[in-house]
Amino acid sequence: MTKSSLERFAPVLNLQHSARARMRPVSVSAVEISGGFWAEPLRINREITIPGQYRHLETTGRLDNFRRASGRKQCDFQGIFFNDSDVYKWLEAAAWALASDRDPEIEAMADAAIDEIAPAQQADGYLNTYYMFERAEQRFSNLAVMHELYCAGHLIQAAVAHHRATGKRSLLDVAVRLADHIDRTFGPEPGKRPGACGHEEAEMALVELAREVEEPRYLALADFMVACRGREPRVLDGKEYLQDHLPVARQFEMTGHAVRQLYLLCGVADLALEGEQPDLEHALQAIWNNFTERRIYITGGAGSRYEGEAFGGDYELPSDRAYAETCAAIASVMWNWRMLQLTGEARFADLLEWTLYNAVISGWSLDGSRYFYENPLSDSGKHRRSEWFGCACCPPNLARTIASLTGYLYSVADDGVYLHLYAASTAHLQDSRGSQLTIRQQTDYPRSGRIQITVESDSGLDSTLWVRIPGWVGEGAARVTVAGAETTAMSGAYFPIAIRGKLTEAVVDLPMAVQELEAGPEVASCWQRIALTRGPLVYCFEQADNGTLDLARCTVQPGVANWRIATDDAPGGQVMLEGDAEVQSEAGKLPLYHPWDSRAPTKSSCSLRAIPYYAWANRDPGPMLVWVAAR
Amino acid sequence: MTKSSLERFAPVLNLQHSARARMRPVSVSAVEISGGFWAEPLRINREITIPGQYRHLETTGRLDNFRRASGRKQCDFQGIFFNDSDVYKWLEAAAWALASDRDPEIEAMADAAIDEIAPAQQADGYLNTYYMFERAEQRFSNLAVMHELYCAGHLIQAAVAHHRATGKRSLLDVAVRLADHIDRTFGPEPGKRPGACGHEEAEMALVELAREVEEPRYLALADFMVACRGREPRVLDGKEYLQDHLPVARQFEMTGHAVRQLYLLCGVADLALEGEQPDLEHALQAIWNNFTERRIYITGGAGSRYEGEAFGGDYELPSDRAYAETCAAIASVMWNWRMLQLTGEARFADLLEWTLYNAVISGWSLDGSRYFYENPLSDSGKHRRSEWFGCACCPPNLARTIASLTGYLYSVADDGVYLHLYAASTAHLQDSRGSQLTIRQQTDYPRSGRIQITVESDSGLDSTLWVRIPGWVGEGAARVTVAGAETTAMSGAYFPIAIRGKLTEAVVDLPMAVQELEAGPEVASCWQRIALTRGPLVYCFEQADNGTLDLARCTVQPGVANWRIATDDAPGGQVMLEGDAEVQSEAGKLPLYHPWDSRAPTKSSCSLRAIPYYAWANRDPGPMLVWVAAR
Repeated sequence: MTKSSLERFAPVLNLQHSARARMRPVSVSAVEISGGFWAEPLRINREITIPGQYRHLETTGRLDNFRRASGRKQCDFQGIFFNDSDVYKWLEAAAWALASDRDPEIEAMADAAIDEIAPAQQADGYLNTYYMFERAEQRFSNLAVMHELYCAGHLIQAAVAHHRATGKRSLLDVAVRLADHIDRTFGPEPGKRPGACGHEEAEMALVELAREVEEPRYLALADFMVACRGREPRVLDGKEYLQDHLPVARQFEMTGHAVRQLYLLCGVADLALEGEQPDLEHALQAIWNNFTERRIYITGGAGSRYEGEAFGGDYELPSDRAYAETCAAIASVMWNWRMLQLTGEARFADLLEWTLYNAVISGWSLDGSRYFYENPLSDSGKHRRSEWFGCACCPPNLARTIASLTGYLYSVADDGVYLHLYAASTAHLQDSRGSQLTIRQQTDYPRSGRIQITVESDSGLDSTLWVRIPGWVGEGAARVTVAGAETTAMSGAYFPIAIRGKLTEAVVDLPMAVQELEAGPEVASCWQRIALTRGPLVYCFEQADNGTLDLARCTVQPGVANWRIATDDAPGGQVMLEGDAEVQSEAGKLPLYHPWDSRAPTKSSCSLRAIPYYAWANRDPGPMLVWVAAR
Repeated sequence: MTKSSLERFAPVLNLQHSARARMRPVSVSAVEISGGFWAEPLRINREITIPGQYRHLETTGRLDNFRRASGRKQCDFQGIFFNDSDVYKWLEAAAWALASDRDPEIEAMADAAIDEIAPAQQADGYLNTYYMFERAEQRFSNLAVMHELYCAGHLIQAAVAHHRATGKRSLLDVAVRLADHIDRTFGPEPGKRPGACGHEEAEMALVELAREVEEPRYLALADFMVACRGREPRVLDGKEYLQDHLPVARQFEMTGHAVRQLYLLCGVADLALEGEQPDLEHALQAIWNNFTERRIYITGGAGSRYEGEAFGGDYELPSDRAYAETCAAIASVMWNWRMLQLTGEARFADLLEWTLYNAVISGWSLDGSRYFYENPLSDSGKHRRSEWFGCACCPPNLARTIASLTGYLYSVADDGVYLHLYAASTAHLQDSRGSQLTIRQQTDYPRSGRIQITVESDSGLDSTLWVRIPGWVGEGAARVTVAGAETTAMSGAYFPIAIRGKLTEAVVDLPMAVQELEAGPEVASCWQRIALTRGPLVYCFEQADNGTLDLARCTVQPGVANWRIATDDAPGGQVMLEGDAEVQSEAGKLPLYHPWDSRAPTKSSCSLRAIPYYAWANRDPGPMLVWVAAR
């Protein structure tokens, strides 16, 4: 890969000129997955998911809505008023896929979609297929509810990705005209209005557009939208559900609609990357703490309430009715990625990886054709993935995340290159001293915790490869071997591997012990229960692996269950765990509520099998639980 | 009390001529509470709640909506489209209050309300203040959503109660005209339409109106409405949420909106009381089993989901987000009352009483001025009662239930008189042989389980008083003493006390031991937790009684906690329990999810105090839980 193509296939976030970026991402195309865990999802995303979703866009009328708006087709508006966003998110997925592999079929689909979108844009730059014709007068009249700026944001994100991946301006020009229209409408200047969207998204999109076309107006507009929240005049009715209850700088809890909240945090982090915003950064940290200390699922899932797809109160984390929307987990990945680039702190990379493995890809069937909207932590067997949804936010969100995965493996900083995610891959990077580095990871992580790394440097100049030692590794248990010298590496931090000369070889060893985790006693649903993890994977118990055992009546004794590898071909290709347990037999039929001492004393030994949570619901329907009863 | 007044003040349900009633209720006015548990709630309901709610009806525009409809006032429709029903439910409460005590102030308020309602009725009998003027053309155009028949049902119930309590026809005539209008609109005959309401209520109201005015057309109409559900043409879009997914006779689970479901079951039970309906009776039994075996809270609360105020799946019974709407518990009382009259089986009376004490009156502050809509089983201290609601279904529902309470104490059957509820009271009844019985209960139940009963018979003819031995009494633990002879009485059944001569004296002794209950292992939120009960009362642990103890970190050891009476003046006038427990101290700050073996080993002994659940949230806000952790 040549340097010029590296420049063209720019990173997921372009922070090359961001004033406050502690790290800068590398381009999606700079890293190639060479096998291991991610090879198959990336292939499936490219071959099955992205083409399959395009067909859904067509058959559900989402593309027809653009044809209607441009006058190419006479029909009613179809579906939900924010359906444009699904087309844009799909385009972003297609664009990132093209950044890795310029597949002509995907490029043709993307060009075809853009060819429907562009003529739907109005002369003044406005573009939203719902607010056409009889509804044209109502444009921007209901910012709290109607998602116009949200849709615009997704168009902008897609356009930026498409421009970076292909060099084409066909969608970018549309996005710029729309951004200019929004910029003429909203702002602090005379003749403009205060404004922000009830569903955040435009903020981060505008920052990214500002970076892409080097236009500071869009940055100022995003800043203005954030500043409009929680202040007079109330543009969003002051609703906490829409993060409009307080000025953002004074917000300190994860609250309201989960995806909205997390998209807001992405935009705020983007602003913080561009210029000093101490109050906003304080809010980012406070909300991150509230999230990780009180409102996150063990999977990384975000948002516990079905009603409103929202965050619940502190420790309100039910397993069976966990909402944990796939989009919210993706938004958390996006936010933690920005926090990582901003601060360089490994805890953000830890949560990003954990969320990716346990809350994002659970939203996807192993064959790439079906999706979860909600990701519960226990289920009776009724919750299954669907091919599509009326509100289809999650499927293309997954596709764009998987398509851009290679952009999340590394960052470059002044003090070296940072390796965030372990995955069999080859990367071509340039460090801050200008050396061209080729970094190869050989590993079947997370099946095993051994990663062999070679770094070739064209210059031979000294450099540093900082490798992330995840926080889940027990203290003092990780080892890094460089040139035959083994060192113990601190967990929850980046460990520096010195790059000397033209070839450096290193091995990272992360112990993959099975851990039995419990929750704090405030989490009512987890009381006297444990969840299993191995490496970055949360496990679950699914009926398909456990015969006729009644999972609700099984108990394990922490510390003595002797968790071991049962097979190495669990669904998803990871290891299946097995441990010793007891099953309580039902001694006759007891009432639902009955005296404690009437419990059936008869228990028998059994084995329980667990698979990675992300791989559940890919076989025959049956009960599943993450948190198994402990005794 | 004379026989003629008994006839006039007819019972809550008039089953005097119901073909299949195993039991027949006695009139609200036949029983007078003479002290004990219920004296104060009845006084408060009469003096505080009913007058206070009338003021809310006035200040929130609910009465103005009638004035607008009648042309007496020019104003916009105010509030929610089904707000008429709150006025009607309040009128029913006032009527039952008048049946017990013809208070002139309440009667004047009731007459004033009726004087606003009657002129709002249209010439054709239609009456709904929302569908007036510009909306008149849309009458009965959206049965699934718009609650017109629901409102009509509440008008009918209020009218029947008002007629029974006062002998006045002022509201009954309105109800009859409306019922006739509905009967001209819906039905199987040519020129009529299929129809049923998305919110059931009209069914039971029409049956009761048929009984009151002896008009079988209304019975047939109710039967038709039930028959329309789950069949073609789909009048309610086939929605399970509206119990329209299957023919009612083939429904077997508690599903959808909880109040709707339970009101449907009331109407179906009413139909079964009037004529043989084996398929419907089968459905009633199946749904009762599903409810009590899988979908009921330990309090009797019904409906676990906030989203849609709905039943969840089997065993989906979270504590912190229990919806358990007050109206749903009231509906369960109404349904179980009908099932009891239909079958004579004590299990329905058991559930009725349990629900009344633990899920209905929890919806009410002890001072009668504030209400819960939702009744969670654990709380952080944020959930408090409100003076009123925009959707104010619960407050007047509570008022009508309390006002009619005396109608639930007894029934009369061919084989004697049945005593369902223990309460200090005097009843004047006529048994099936025509004897006038005066039954006095002296008791402070449920503080104690001793009830002294005297029965005076004017005739001296042999009769039987069947007293309910609740199912919560341990087998063989209840004793009944008649004429000095003590007998052990089977629990969960009625025990016959022979009435001989003109005066019979008996004592019922129900042991009031504290019980530690657990739930079946399928109820995830209750795993390794116990709930306390004493007699018919479920207890809870409230911060106000437990100093600075962190309730989430307290554990009790079942069997050795030595539950004892701490004081006899807990809020609500019941006993407060105290037991030995341990509190786990927080050894430093652990992550939300952490290895099991890192738990803090330091525990210290403590005492935990519990009060009856219904009395919680009457003092300083703080955490509350019903299910305490067990070890």
